Amino acid sequence: MTIILNGKELALKITDDIKISTAEYSDKPKLAVISAGENPASLIYIKNKQKKASELGFESFVINLPNNVSEDNLLENIFILNEDKNINAILVQLPLPEHINKQRVLDAIEPVKDVDGFTSFNFGRLALGYKPYAYPCTPKGILRLLTEYNINLEGKNVTVIGRSNIVGKPLSLMLQMKNATVTLAHSKTQNLKEHCLNSDIIISAAGVENLIRADFVRDNTVLVDVAINRTSSGLKGDVDFINVSPKCSYITPVPGGVGPMTIAMLMENTLELFKLQKSLFL
Amino acid sequence: MTIILNGKELALKITDDIKISTAEYSDKPKLAVISAGENPASLIYIKNKQKKASELGFESFVINLPNNVSEDNLLENIFILNEDKNINAILVQLPLPEHINKQRVLDAIEPVKDVDGFTSFNFGRLALGYKPYAYPCTPKGILRLLTEYNINLEGKNVTVIGRSNIVGKPLSLMLQMKNATVTLAHSKTQNLKEHCLNSDIIISAAGVENLIRADFVRDNTVLVDVAINRTSSGLKGDVDFINVSPKCSYITPVPGGVGPMTIAMLMENTLELFKLQKSLFL
Repeated sequence: MTIILNGKELALKITDDIKISTAEYSDKPKLAVISAGENPASLIYIKNKQKKASELGFESFVINLPNNVSEDNLLENIFILNEDKNINAILVQLPLPEHINKQRVLDAIEPVKDVDGFTSFNFGRLALGYKPYAYPCTPKGILRLLTEYNINLEGKNVTVIGRSNIVGKPLSLMLQMKNATVTLAHSKTQNLKEHCLNSDIIISAAGVENLIRADFVRDNTVLVDVAINRTSSGLKGDVDFINVSPKCSYITPVPGGVGPMTIAMLMENTLELFKLQKSLFL
Repeated sequence: MTIILNGKELALKITDDIKISTAEYSDKPKLAVISAGENPASLIYIKNKQKKASELGFESFVINLPNNVSEDNLLENIFILNEDKNINAILVQLPLPEHINKQRVLDAIEPVKDVDGFTSFNFGRLALGYKPYAYPCTPKGILRLLTEYNINLEGKNVTVIGRSNIVGKPLSLMLQMKNATVTLAHSKTQNLKEHCLNSDIIISAAGVENLIRADFVRDNTVLVDVAINRTSSGLKGDVDFINVSPKCSYITPVPGGVGPMTIAMLMENTLELFKLQKSLFL
């Protein structure tokens, strides 16, 4: 029997708890989002984040800079947010325009306000096995979802597909800390099928529709599909769900799997930074 | 035919070049080593580093603090070295006494003087795929040795055994950047033999004598043995060399493989930081 990893349901449970916890404070957690340009997907993501923040009793606002903004101007905006004691969390919406040095901008964020965990400092903490101020939201959400369903990671063979700084790389580091044996596959991997067939758990964040087919998966595999591919027939993950899911012990749907967990973790990180800053600055 | 990856020879070539390059400057690269306690292995390592530094025309000195040194005292020593413009490279000799928060001490080092690349900032840069001020010496030395023998990494399956912050973790991140497909195995890995048999390249940093036996290795494997195990019959690596080496296309000896490369990379990092600081501070 295949069990659906219901991210939507778990995310609701988590955000309900966040809402209750937030109501206990007289002031509100405050999230600042900075973006540049008019990437349509980014605008939707930002709108969803603001909507969720508002539902939970957070304050949030967006600084949308023009596509031709200078790097110095972007940095200046971040420095102001760093100094502002009313701002708890700063999120730079990616992608940034090509002419901007992305990591230089991310590294300008004060680590204690780095809600995505993408500064070199926080990412280094994570990679070294220490707790960063915030864990990247998508990997954190995936681990939470697996934990919710009591899926044990210790000693398990896990193949992570996709080596992005947002998902694949931090996820593989976090899985290693849970004592999983992780193989990080990517576009240059030559025998992906073989790696998948040797895995207890497959986590695909490649962004390639139908990458994971039934012959890639042995019986009782746990399958987490992180991708959101926009196709002519709607949103699809990397997994050929209809043919693959019967072989799985657990599988995430797309949508309704990892996506809602990511935004829930963003909210959780915001609340955690808010609480932490209270203890540091009061 | 099995080719021996001669780290001793390559390290000599590299340090000869460093010596020539250093002689071109009127002032000398200066390395500061901080240690605490009287760990016998540490004392030998430090002595070797100082000897090599002196041979290459570097200045170096050691601050040896007592085993019961306070963390604040250790940090204070680092802050003084950070401020001293004559010091180019700071190395904290590990292990530190149990009562010291190791990562807090390492993170006190100014990243531009962090000759081992162990600060959260530099390690984060490495993990995110950006150039740190310095790469950790052992992984850097291993990659240099493989490059010297024209061993291609792209698309290759590599199993790295051991997930330390000094070797296994940074090495796996650096191999990923070279487009290898990396599996990071460790003490909780359940089927190490199978992982090894699926690998083009095995890099063992487990510290377990005879861990890698002939039946773990398929023909034409590239084998890098990072371990130095002190046994009753002298220094041994993780590999059963006599029985494994005939199956390998390339293999490192122990000693004379990775060890000399590590110290050569420490010297190279010191020289590079010296040059960089000239360009920044003059």
